[in-house]
Amino acid sequence: MADKKFIDFYKKNLEETKRKIKASVTDDLLIVQIINNIDDLNKIINILAKDLREWYSYYNPEFSKEIQDHARFVELILSGKDKKIKQSMGAELSKEDLKPIFNLAKKIKDVFEFRDEQEICLEKMMKKVMPNATAVAGSVIGARLLQHAGSLKRLIMLPSSTVQLLGAEKALFRHIKSGSKCPKYGVLHEHPLIMKANRKDHGKIARALADKISIAARVDYFKGKFIGDELIKGLEERFG
Amino acid sequence: MADKKFIDFYKKNLEETKRKIKASVTDDLLIVQIINNIDDLNKIINILAKDLREWYSYYNPEFSKEIQDHARFVELILSGKDKKIKQSMGAELSKEDLKPIFNLAKKIKDVFEFRDEQEICLEKMMKKVMPNATAVAGSVIGARLLQHAGSLKRLIMLPSSTVQLLGAEKALFRHIKSGSKCPKYGVLHEHPLIMKANRKDHGKIARALADKISIAARVDYFKGKFIGDELIKGLEERFG
Repeated sequence: MADKKFIDFYKKNLEETKRKIKASVTDDLLIVQIINNIDDLNKIINILAKDLREWYSYYNPEFSKEIQDHARFVELILSGKDKKIKQSMGAELSKEDLKPIFNLAKKIKDVFEFRDEQEICLEKMMKKVMPNATAVAGSVIGARLLQHAGSLKRLIMLPSSTVQLLGAEKALFRHIKSGSKCPKYGVLHEHPLIMKANRKDHGKIARALADKISIAARVDYFKGKFIGDELIKGLEERFG
Repeated sequence: MADKKFIDFYKKNLEETKRKIKASVTDDLLIVQIINNIDDLNKIINILAKDLREWYSYYNPEFSKEIQDHARFVELILSGKDKKIKQSMGAELSKEDLKPIFNLAKKIKDVFEFRDEQEICLEKMMKKVMPNATAVAGSVIGARLLQHAGSLKRLIMLPSSTVQLLGAEKALFRHIKSGSKCPKYGVLHEHPLIMKANRKDHGKIARALADKISIAARVDYFKGKFIGDELIKGLEERFG
């Protein structure tokens, strides 16, 4: 009798625990996973592009120096437009020797395309989970803020001055320890408003941006109505 | 008049340099590139598989622990055989949430296949450039020896005791500096003869193997006739 009671209790307890674990997986955690994956894909593109450049330069060393952008480099090799440079000092490789190089270029193009696909998935999820913050920060920057904070709940509990510096932890601690310049922004540095502004306005814009993102993220967390367009419009009028 | 002479000299010199650079690209350098690429692809598979496991475990945490092998893990997810575990404590994800996870699994399978393709290319080149060493060591181990030595010419100039320890540099220097155990082999540890032998015979087999590989590589460098089958047969009779 006591045994049965105990087993019942154990089962209920297990069920309850499973239910809680299930419920703990929220959409913002999936966003963190997808942005982690995008970061890794960018790393992978760099690894493979380095391999390709080193290998390819046996064949046509001048070409690799001329084209710095990885995506364009791969594209030109695949389209056969890499042969324009005459009198290359590269070796003459047989078709068979070139095959694995060409295949590698194809694979890099694949990874580029896959990264773009994952970014589209990310954008969809961001618009669903954080429509306001996405409108202000953009989906990639918004996701990166989430990645650094850990979850949406933790992001909205941060003061906006912390949001401004998320992703600049290293520079911040260097500033505190050794008195070097204080960073003005972390992951926000890729935001179009900052990118196109004068250097001297960067700090001001980053501060305003972090303010609005904090407000937007809080509205998102409490499922308020959509005010993202107003927020970004206000910023664009001030700094755009 | 003197100018023309000078320009002629300059042109001839340039041509000669280009010719020499062209000639310096030998097949063994291409093999080193391809094995470098294979190493990077293995690294990439690990990065992506780690991403996949972490992400997927929100959905079905028990499954990732049960299947340790990356290739099988990916295969089971793609074939839909991952749903067998009942009462998983994972979250219920929508189809849309699962899409990027599934796409990642597909991409990992792609990279696996690409690595296998590159290994086939490697084998072809190894059989062409180092038929004897390939017969004794196998194409991947042979290529790795080449990678560590730098070129075929440098490989054949190494004593066989160095060949035996190529790839074990770290353990060797630790042995010299701090008196820890001397390593018995480096990249040779994956050779089937060593893999299936008793632990106590490992050193003996590695020494014999390195001897034969050194002989085989020298025959390859000087374009001698094919004796690889005799060499490996002798080893198999002694240790197989």
